[in-house]
Amino acid sequence: MRNVAVIGTGLTKFGEHWEKSLRNLSTEAGALALKEADIDGSQVQALFIGNMSAGRFIGQEHLGALAADQAGLLPIPATRCEAACASGSLAFRKAVFAIQSGRYDIVVAAGAEKMTDLKGTDAIATLMGAGDQEWESSIGLTFSGLYALMARSYMHRFGLTREELALIPVKNHANGVNNPYAQFRFEITVEDVLKSPMISDPLRLLDCSPITDGAAAIVLASEEVAKKYENPIWLLGTGHASDTLALHSRPDICTISATGHASRKAYEEAGLKPGDMSMAEVHDCFSIAELLAYEGLGFAEKGKGRELLVNGDTKTTGRIPVNTDGGLKLGHPVGATGIKQIIEVVKQIQGKAFNQISNVKYGLTHNVGGSGATCIVNIFGVEKPVR
Amino acid sequence: MRNVAVIGTGLTKFGEHWEKSLRNLSTEAGALALKEADIDGSQVQALFIGNMSAGRFIGQEHLGALAADQAGLLPIPATRCEAACASGSLAFRKAVFAIQSGRYDIVVAAGAEKMTDLKGTDAIATLMGAGDQEWESSIGLTFSGLYALMARSYMHRFGLTREELALIPVKNHANGVNNPYAQFRFEITVEDVLKSPMISDPLRLLDCSPITDGAAAIVLASEEVAKKYENPIWLLGTGHASDTLALHSRPDICTISATGHASRKAYEEAGLKPGDMSMAEVHDCFSIAELLAYEGLGFAEKGKGRELLVNGDTKTTGRIPVNTDGGLKLGHPVGATGIKQIIEVVKQIQGKAFNQISNVKYGLTHNVGGSGATCIVNIFGVEKPVR
Repeated sequence: MRNVAVIGTGLTKFGEHWEKSLRNLSTEAGALALKEADIDGSQVQALFIGNMSAGRFIGQEHLGALAADQAGLLPIPATRCEAACASGSLAFRKAVFAIQSGRYDIVVAAGAEKMTDLKGTDAIATLMGAGDQEWESSIGLTFSGLYALMARSYMHRFGLTREELALIPVKNHANGVNNPYAQFRFEITVEDVLKSPMISDPLRLLDCSPITDGAAAIVLASEEVAKKYENPIWLLGTGHASDTLALHSRPDICTISATGHASRKAYEEAGLKPGDMSMAEVHDCFSIAELLAYEGLGFAEKGKGRELLVNGDTKTTGRIPVNTDGGLKLGHPVGATGIKQIIEVVKQIQGKAFNQISNVKYGLTHNVGGSGATCIVNIFGVEKPVR
Repeated sequence: MRNVAVIGTGLTKFGEHWEKSLRNLSTEAGALALKEADIDGSQVQALFIGNMSAGRFIGQEHLGALAADQAGLLPIPATRCEAACASGSLAFRKAVFAIQSGRYDIVVAAGAEKMTDLKGTDAIATLMGAGDQEWESSIGLTFSGLYALMARSYMHRFGLTREELALIPVKNHANGVNNPYAQFRFEITVEDVLKSPMISDPLRLLDCSPITDGAAAIVLASEEVAKKYENPIWLLGTGHASDTLALHSRPDICTISATGHASRKAYEEAGLKPGDMSMAEVHDCFSIAELLAYEGLGFAEKGKGRELLVNGDTKTTGRIPVNTDGGLKLGHPVGATGIKQIIEVVKQIQGKAFNQISNVKYGLTHNVGGSGATCIVNIFGVEKPVR
């Protein structure tokens, strides 16, 4: 299998971009990525874009061609990938496969979502397109409702307290203060979380990721191209797995089994273990999701994820820092999130992150679609894998 | 590059399936494809599904995981691809890349769309998600309107008559009579076309493809697996290109330049010329689209496509039969169409088609998204390519 590396990254600010449309945002991120890779558009051979629901958010499908068109990259082949909130990571994987097929040496993998052009209630309904329409959304379930069911069940089974769960958004908000791309840049306390408005019991406003506009893009290259760069960051392993769309169809709603399947595949491909990771970006769409990720990724045993929180292990000063840029809590333009996670890991490995961790050798991204029906895990490192 | 072959195909009837949902249709097609390939679900390593707009048609995104879930294929990785009406071919290409990356040996590529659960006007608006939302759909353009602009311009520039254009639906309806999967199975005359209700001048009802529910699936295999089969059909070449989303941005609205780019790439990869093709399935969403395809694919020079019609060259008895199963006029469940086209070409090469052409050595599929912003061309043959 051919080796693939990231040679450039680009990110828009995450937030409410009333003055920019989806096409503006995706082009902005793409141009920044090309600039960082020091290439021009004529060198890009194919484009992949992750987007969840522009059809419903802004009445626009066919985003591959649109992105290529707006970026002046015509007539290159352009592909839109969708797996709900894991759409960005899906686009990344398809871009990797395209290089590994032997067809291309330089491709762009991007993600973008424009979520604020609709009213709040419509955005919630649109996001439920990621769940099971016939069994969940049709009866009024929302994503905060689905994750609240997981949180309540987890608290009951494993003795997690409401205060302990609040440590996740507190940590992530603290990390986001230094992140100029974050939608929110203020610290919060456990008390703030517990006093914030109830959304879906036991989850409160500060447990939830926001509605966000934004885009992210990376330039990927084959080994032949990447070896000419000073600081390429190599993909060491990748895994992707599926689960039932409906939460109620799973044997255990406190386990996102797709995380386990995808991460085992990624660790195996990379020849690494959970303990080898220097840091991770995980999918904290709701506070409980980050806790489930700790366990699914093997950072803690089932039911023991709370110990990482209580010990501060996942803070930037801990043994396995998680969501060093603030995570999804600091902005979640759904289609862009997977690519944004990769950018943070790349910056950490390059030693150029906002909250730089020392000695980052290996970093992992974990991106979930829906309530866990899709999970994609990628592992990156500074040294070229030998295959 | 690894060789890839089709080893199984499955198709639902195209039509108005009031008693079946998208998940029923995709599972039905997938099960038929597995049966034809004589494999069971445990052998499928990854799933790719093309779908244009289930988010708007039925409120359901996240179709990769849904299809894997419904088909009992969990936890395999599942990918939804979208490029408007070329979504099926896009899923096929990504499935091919996945095998060529070296990761998988058996994958399913499917396409599905459920279009009738909405009222007619909503379906038209939803389909305009394939066009440019900011410059076309927002001002009321429809797809029949866009193709009518091309048709009117073409008739003016190249002297095509309304009667000559009608020969396309007349031919395709005649081919569809023998096709048990077709939505409509009756012959029509040129007079019928000219008397059918006006939709967008000069296009009339019988120039237009219908609103359809349906699904199609194929099983793809690497050479290692495919060589154990009696009659694998090999992918010889594939091409994919993009153009501006908005029709008005193109230098010439009588040319779908993405067809030219994609087909040149496919011919080059296959080491074949347009004249080598025994038959082709082309994207006749509107009658004029088939004529433009003749020229874009190199079957006729620019402005001379009408000669093929007048001479009957693209009838089943002609020198380059086109749309031998009836084409899109006999049903166009947009996400499924690209896979359905591949199935017809595979059946023709295997000698098992409804309207079997004699001595089919090479067949081509041509699938267009929107008014030509995406085009994907694939060439298949009975002999394994030597690379």
